[in-house]
Amino acid sequence: MERITVRRRVLRITADDGPRRAEDLLAAEEPLELRIGSRPLTVTMRTPGHDVELAAGFLVSEGVVTEAGHLAGARYCAGPPADGPNTYNVLSVALGPGVPPPAPGLERAFATTSACGVCGKSSIDDVRTRSRWRVADDEVAVPATLLSTLPDRLRAGQKVFDSTGGLHAAGLFDAATGELLVLREDVGRHNAVDKVVGWALLSGRLPLRGTVLVVSGRSSFELTQKALMAGIPVLASVSAPSSLAVDLAQESGLTLVGFLRGPSMVVYSRPERVQVEVPVP
Amino acid sequence: MERITVRRRVLRITADDGPRRAEDLLAAEEPLELRIGSRPLTVTMRTPGHDVELAAGFLVSEGVVTEAGHLAGARYCAGPPADGPNTYNVLSVALGPGVPPPAPGLERAFATTSACGVCGKSSIDDVRTRSRWRVADDEVAVPATLLSTLPDRLRAGQKVFDSTGGLHAAGLFDAATGELLVLREDVGRHNAVDKVVGWALLSGRLPLRGTVLVVSGRSSFELTQKALMAGIPVLASVSAPSSLAVDLAQESGLTLVGFLRGPSMVVYSRPERVQVEVPVP
Repeated sequence: MERITVRRRVLRITADDGPRRAEDLLAAEEPLELRIGSRPLTVTMRTPGHDVELAAGFLVSEGVVTEAGHLAGARYCAGPPADGPNTYNVLSVALGPGVPPPAPGLERAFATTSACGVCGKSSIDDVRTRSRWRVADDEVAVPATLLSTLPDRLRAGQKVFDSTGGLHAAGLFDAATGELLVLREDVGRHNAVDKVVGWALLSGRLPLRGTVLVVSGRSSFELTQKALMAGIPVLASVSAPSSLAVDLAQESGLTLVGFLRGPSMVVYSRPERVQVEVPVP
Repeated sequence: MERITVRRRVLRITADDGPRRAEDLLAAEEPLELRIGSRPLTVTMRTPGHDVELAAGFLVSEGVVTEAGHLAGARYCAGPPADGPNTYNVLSVALGPGVPPPAPGLERAFATTSACGVCGKSSIDDVRTRSRWRVADDEVAVPATLLSTLPDRLRAGQKVFDSTGGLHAAGLFDAATGELLVLREDVGRHNAVDKVVGWALLSGRLPLRGTVLVVSGRSSFELTQKALMAGIPVLASVSAPSSLAVDLAQESGLTLVGFLRGPSMVVYSRPERVQVEVPVP
C-alpha cells in the first residue's frame, strides 16, 4: 500500500472545530511510461500498482494483443537520466514471437480513424471490426436482482477508496453466480478497467464471456470500447452513459446498464439479457 | 441544446413498476478533431458546444497560446470524404502572426479522451508544462464562508446535468465577490475546464488572477496544471485530489481545496489564502 496512498500535511476546516493542521491520506497518482522494448508508446497518469496488468490491458484495448502468449515479459527500467534511480514509473513490455508491434503513432492513427467521417458512425464500425470477439453472440443472461447488488459489492471492495475517498474502481463479476472475479482501483477510470482486462489476459481468460463489468463512474465511449475489446457482454454503472457509449453498445450487441441504484436501473441496449421477475399482483 | 443532449429508447426497470420501455435523455459525446491549419493536432471526445473555447483552452493548457491575439480564427471544416457533409466535428484553428505552431510530434503526444487528457504524453519529462504566469504571487484571499457556497452554485448552474445526470462541470468565480464568471459542462472534466479557460482567453482575461475554479470531480494532476497555465490561484472541488495534484499545487503556490462540503473543507496548499473566522467561545 506504500505507493498507493501518500500522506500530506493539510489544513482541515470544519464548522465545529475551526481550522486545524492535520495529516491527510491521498490516492497516489504518478505517471507510467509504457514502452514496447525500448520505444516509448504512451504515458498515463495512474495509481501505482498492478502496472503489468495495466500495460497488458492497455495493449488489449488497442488491439495489439489478445492472449497471454502475445506478451513475452515486462520489466521496470530506469527513466532519464539513464543512470538515475529506478522510479518504477517506466515499464518496458516485450511482445511475444511473431506479434507485430503497434505502428508508430498508433494513438494518432486511432484518433484519426475515430474522427474519420466524424459522425461517430465510422469510428463505431472501425472498433467493431478491430475487436477479435463478438459480444453480440454471447447468450449470457443476468437477473436484475443480481445486477442490483453489484454496486454495493464494488464499493465494499474498494479498500483504497475507504482511506482516501479518491479512487475509481472497476469490478468484474460472473453473470451467473455474481462472484467477484477481480476488482481494481485507480485515479483514472480507464486505468481501472485496463487493469481488470490485463488481469484477465494474463490469466488466460479472454474473451470474458458471461461476465459483467461494473464501473464506478460514467460509461463513456472509451470504456464501452474497452469492454468490447475484452469480449465483455454486459457493462454497468451507477451513473449515466454518454450518447456515443449507447450507440456503440447498440451497434455491437453489448448490454449497457446505467443508473444502477438499488432495484432501479436503465438498460440502454440488448435488454433481453436482463431477466426481470415481474411480481404477480 | 440540440446536439448537447440526444434521445434514445431504453428499458427502465424499477421496483414499483417493473420494466417498461421509455425514452431517455443522454449527454451527447462526439469526437472533435482539432487542426492547426490543415494539420491534425488531436482528437478529443467531447460534448458538442463551445468548441472554439475548447480549442482555445486546450492550446492554453499546452502552452501554445497565452492571449487572444495568438489566435487568428477558427472554422469548422468537412471531414473525409472531402465533399461530405459538415459534421461540425472538425475544427481548424489559425494561429496569429508569429505564433509558432506546436512542434511536430505533438499530435502523437496528445491523444486525449474524455477520461484522461495526458495519456498520450510521449515521455514523463513532457508531463509538466511551464506556465507563463506565477500564481504563487497572487495575493488573493477568499473567505471560507464564500468557498462553502460555491459547489451548490455550480450544481445549480448545471442545466444539462439536470436533464441527463451525466455531465461534469467547471465554474469560474470571482474570489472577492463570489460572482460566477462562467460555467461550462462536458462529458469530460478536462474539456469543461478547457472551455472555461478558452472563454477567458477569448475575452482577454488571462491570467485569471483573483479567481476560484470549482470542478465537479476530483482534482487531478492534469486539472491542476490547466489551472496553473491559466493563472488561476485557487482550485476547489467537492472530492479528493490526487497526490500529484497536491505536489504540483504545493510547488507552484496554487491553493488547492478538496472535500468542499458545506462548511467543511480540506486545504492542501497555500492555506493562508483561505480566510477563516474563528468563533469566539
